[in-house]
Amino acid sequence: MLVALRVEGALSRAALAKRVGLSRTTLSEITADLLGRGAITKVDTDADVRRGSGRPAERLALDPSAGQYLGVDFGHRRVHVAIANASHEIVASGLVRYDDSTPWDDRLDLAFDAVDALTVEHGLHLGALQAVGIGVPGPYTGARPGDAAPVAWNRDATPVGVDEAFAQRYDAPVVVDNNTRLAALAEAVSGPDGPSDLTYVRLSDGVGGGLVVDGRLVRGSRGFAGELGHVTSDPGGVLCRCGKRGCLETVASVPAILAACRSRGADVEDLDGLAVAVDRADPVVDAVLREVGAAVGRVLGAAAMTLDPTEVVIGGEIVHVAPVIVEQAASTLRYELHSIPTSDACTVRAGRLRDSDGAQGALAATFHQSPLLAGYPEPGSFGASETQRSAQ
Amino acid sequence: MLVALRVEGALSRAALAKRVGLSRTTLSEITADLLGRGAITKVDTDADVRRGSGRPAERLALDPSAGQYLGVDFGHRRVHVAIANASHEIVASGLVRYDDSTPWDDRLDLAFDAVDALTVEHGLHLGALQAVGIGVPGPYTGARPGDAAPVAWNRDATPVGVDEAFAQRYDAPVVVDNNTRLAALAEAVSGPDGPSDLTYVRLSDGVGGGLVVDGRLVRGSRGFAGELGHVTSDPGGVLCRCGKRGCLETVASVPAILAACRSRGADVEDLDGLAVAVDRADPVVDAVLREVGAAVGRVLGAAAMTLDPTEVVIGGEIVHVAPVIVEQAASTLRYELHSIPTSDACTVRAGRLRDSDGAQGALAATFHQSPLLAGYPEPGSFGASETQRSAQ
Repeated sequence: MLVALRVEGALSRAALAKRVGLSRTTLSEITADLLGRGAITKVDTDADVRRGSGRPAERLALDPSAGQYLGVDFGHRRVHVAIANASHEIVASGLVRYDDSTPWDDRLDLAFDAVDALTVEHGLHLGALQAVGIGVPGPYTGARPGDAAPVAWNRDATPVGVDEAFAQRYDAPVVVDNNTRLAALAEAVSGPDGPSDLTYVRLSDGVGGGLVVDGRLVRGSRGFAGELGHVTSDPGGVLCRCGKRGCLETVASVPAILAACRSRGADVEDLDGLAVAVDRADPVVDAVLREVGAAVGRVLGAAAMTLDPTEVVIGGEIVHVAPVIVEQAASTLRYELHSIPTSDACTVRAGRLRDSDGAQGALAATFHQSPLLAGYPEPGSFGASETQRSAQ
Repeated sequence: MLVALRVEGALSRAALAKRVGLSRTTLSEITADLLGRGAITKVDTDADVRRGSGRPAERLALDPSAGQYLGVDFGHRRVHVAIANASHEIVASGLVRYDDSTPWDDRLDLAFDAVDALTVEHGLHLGALQAVGIGVPGPYTGARPGDAAPVAWNRDATPVGVDEAFAQRYDAPVVVDNNTRLAALAEAVSGPDGPSDLTYVRLSDGVGGGLVVDGRLVRGSRGFAGELGHVTSDPGGVLCRCGKRGCLETVASVPAILAACRSRGADVEDLDGLAVAVDRADPVVDAVLREVGAAVGRVLGAAAMTLDPTEVVIGGEIVHVAPVIVEQAASTLRYELHSIPTSDACTVRAGRLRDSDGAQGALAATFHQSPLLAGYPEPGSFGASETQRSAQ
């Protein structure tokens, strides 16, 4: 019903009942509920379009100030939330930081509080959310109690039930996926026409990735596809939290990059410090960043040789602070793809989106409109009420 | 029409006309042509199924001895041809060897001669070939005159026009692709239910690969997907014919493996010699093969970390001669996927099919029935006659 109103604009109850194939009685019950929850509003009467006799009927329309979609991106150290209206425009977004030791119950509460604060600040109401999209760090397999253990490197493994917690709080269907895969989706739909084949890596507290193959977002056979952070970059390198040596994440995560700078005597505490060092063209820092770019380029080169993408994207705040990473990665990738004619080579670029990419991707997953999402799961109902489902 | 006869068995002309939606007159012309070319045959009359009065009508059926599909696999040093009947069963196959300096015109003639010899030997006729599938070494981009140059490592680049040459000789639609991708397709459809996600590599005169992602055979944005032979295995390694150093092909192609054995003093001239050395458990040869397996496992590990396949397959004659390559590759791959729970790990196995895998894959591409081929090009008409097209 909300879809009908989004597509067709304001409609009378009679026109709406005909459009969605419900009886007038059933429809009246649902519209009363949606009016009560603020999702729709009475805009005018159909007097101007009405030809016959009789009393003009009220016309109903989506309330433009109603939040219809919620996107949430849990990182290792912060949660992003973004709210989109029925036209798929983001109407509010915000960020809350936490320590990476914060338990998941607290992370959920912080996210709920952030959403509440946004609705107050922007005068929004979330009466009839159509769907919630949630990004979580590390691979997400949708495991339930009794399923196999979560993967080893997911130190703050997503607790079973994050989907239910959101479904119950907002009485809406939920879709959950790896936050980096959702960021890849956001990058893929960010351009005028999305690439048919995208290889995406994100350098953040960890390193992850996402793939679009043959015009479709790929999850892999068990939900692990795109884990470029745990491709081996240096077989004799340092031990990774996953248990292997020399994974790309041990070289190219933000903490690893900052630590490498410090180990060579550069006074770089955080991304702000890195920005200062890059501004003054610190040669030690430049050397570290070029080595990082080369490592990223080698791993992306193997992936691009395997997948033949049209576009390779390197995301994460750090690539905006230190663009030399992307420059060097592009050069190294060009070497790795030496045998492919230059005229046919894929493009390499920094991510267009900033830190909110995961939340934007979570929203894109809930819209479920892009052809990229053919085969991708639709938001599922975990305790969403019958009213909510019939109202979609 | 041939499809209708394959699905429904013998039919009268009237039933056939109804089934394919053609007039009796048009249908009679086409059936006369197909009868003349030996593709179909008169089997009996419909007297036994006929209820009404009137003269029983002849029933037509596919001629089981007619070759309906031709699969051709050009390697660097041999061409395989295989002929399948209307039931998709291979009824004849053969092999002709040539030197790797043999010009393409001569290779085509050798292939045509091999097909002729097979039809004589097996008493087949190819009067109404439905399609020809052709595998060629190296990436195949379908380039035409004036297009970008073929890729650098394709030393015997497929000449423009191999598709037309076959289309004209056999008056049938043609599909051409990289022979290793076709071998991957053959492996994928060889089991009881094909894997949804397959990563395939073949160790032969060169090293190539093929991918099934999300249940579909992947060509990549420009036809280069799956080129695992030119993923870097050893950045400081020997120069590859593609211009890079240390590509997997420089380590794991059959000539590279044999050369490595010889360089350490093992008397191994060819695969037969390697088989003898493996039989007597030659420790020098065993060490070389384990190093090869580890290199293959590292490259497949990166691919599997990226793609999360259900199955990893290592093909090529050599894996049957030296199974230790697959054993070692499986161990190395297990390490590379350390962070994925063992219960979820993909299987690693040697190819089921032997050296005819490419020709079998070329046939599978012409059948174009597997869901794996959604989005894959259908055989195209290069000069095929209208009669041929309407008869499909």
